[in-house]
Amino acid sequence: MTQTVPTPAHLVRQRYRDPQPTEPAQWNEVLRVLHEHRSVRRYLADPVSDDTLRLLISAAQSAPTSSNLQVWSVVAVRDPRRKARLAALAGDQAHILQAPVLLVWTADFARLRQLADDHDAPLEGADYLESSYVGFIDAALAAQNAVVAAESLGLGTVYLGALRNHPENVAAELNLPAQVFAVFGLLVGHPDPAEDARVKPRLPQGAVLHHETYDLAVQRAHVAEYETRIAEFYAEQQLAHSWTERVLNRLGSVASLNGRHRLRASLENHGFRLK
Amino acid sequence: MTQTVPTPAHLVRQRYRDPQPTEPAQWNEVLRVLHEHRSVRRYLADPVSDDTLRLLISAAQSAPTSSNLQVWSVVAVRDPRRKARLAALAGDQAHILQAPVLLVWTADFARLRQLADDHDAPLEGADYLESSYVGFIDAALAAQNAVVAAESLGLGTVYLGALRNHPENVAAELNLPAQVFAVFGLLVGHPDPAEDARVKPRLPQGAVLHHETYDLAVQRAHVAEYETRIAEFYAEQQLAHSWTERVLNRLGSVASLNGRHRLRASLENHGFRLK
Repeated sequence: MTQTVPTPAHLVRQRYRDPQPTEPAQWNEVLRVLHEHRSVRRYLADPVSDDTLRLLISAAQSAPTSSNLQVWSVVAVRDPRRKARLAALAGDQAHILQAPVLLVWTADFARLRQLADDHDAPLEGADYLESSYVGFIDAALAAQNAVVAAESLGLGTVYLGALRNHPENVAAELNLPAQVFAVFGLLVGHPDPAEDARVKPRLPQGAVLHHETYDLAVQRAHVAEYETRIAEFYAEQQLAHSWTERVLNRLGSVASLNGRHRLRASLENHGFRLK
Repeated sequence: MTQTVPTPAHLVRQRYRDPQPTEPAQWNEVLRVLHEHRSVRRYLADPVSDDTLRLLISAAQSAPTSSNLQVWSVVAVRDPRRKARLAALAGDQAHILQAPVLLVWTADFARLRQLADDHDAPLEGADYLESSYVGFIDAALAAQNAVVAAESLGLGTVYLGALRNHPENVAAELNLPAQVFAVFGLLVGHPDPAEDARVKPRLPQGAVLHHETYDLAVQRAHVAEYETRIAEFYAEQQLAHSWTERVLNRLGSVASLNGRHRLRASLENHGFRLK
């Protein structure tokens, strides 16, 4: 069996399912890894070594962080029993049990609070809604670098937003102190080739990229075009829904948030003042 | 002048200024680009082409997005006058004028709201604090992919959190409708080699990476070690402060938030209900 190396044009076309893609003028190995991303939901039993984990985290720490505050931490969970308990809190997704490592990324103001307390100094700025976003953004930038690093090593990943369904229980399981909040999980492992995970097409670039000022009206046509492009992908995956149906189902009601409508109370319970 | 290729051990040592780094067992071009990240605050006048911009955005759209909602958009600002007005709103940083492109990343629920309205469907889930975090996280994951793509092409970048100092004015400048909120800016351009931007050392890995459960007490020693490591970096940059002083100064008081203590009101003014 021969493996053909995908061309840049093929990779960009695959991301958009654009029948008439432009050939990129530049290309490199980093762009290939970024464009080939797909979510992996079936994993082999092979472990992820401590060496590899250290590399993913040094890549994560290499990401930008607001004012070098570094207001994030990550908890690596490998214990199968702990992982099973966390899976039960995150919608019982089978791939959480399969993947050898679950990384729980947190917005972390406890480290700075301890530092401030040790210096008898105030940390009033941490009590504002703004700072919670800084923590969430810092965690996301770091985690995404870890994703790119993992994929460059042939590993697969998938984020778990469902870790926000029951934040109090997740915090108890991981011994998170006040002002440390689990933002999302990230599974890391060796992809099971039997899954044949595909690259999911995204909205046409014209829907998300605006020049000089934002344009809402133009997006109707792009969304309509997207529905025809993603229909092909859904059919391959034996999924019947349109994107519109999926989106409206996901955000239509409070029930569809799976408990995350309580997020404000949960953050406040964890010492985030959110002023 | 000869250029020596930095070894993996050198790059990891540079990120931590660890006198005794472990030699990574695996390495590749992607890991090199990730570990070499530095913020660039001086740019040459050379433009960034439309081709390059398209590649950065297809990389950004290749990032994971919660439930494929794609609740982000980006506005590319190149008009020098608009860029100057935005610079004035973001702490008047000179490098905003220098860089050829300012990308403004937004949390965008207007696209889905329009879709829901067109279908006479509810979108109740969008009105919760949870959804604002989903938008901020989606924007951050996408933007970070754009950063990695830009750096792989030899471009420099720096995030601008200061774009949240005056959100109402930024929204007016970019014609952002209700439910589109500017999360941060990102400058992209060709680094001026005269800046000699250095890799900033981060906290020892033991401070941010926890195994199975979170440990706060252990972090005091890591922060103390960090102070000695980053002192060397500050000295090279002719900066006198310790990390602790900088952190406490940045989050000590409401005044140090530079207007961002108003973020809740600003989001609500922009149609984010934050229930």
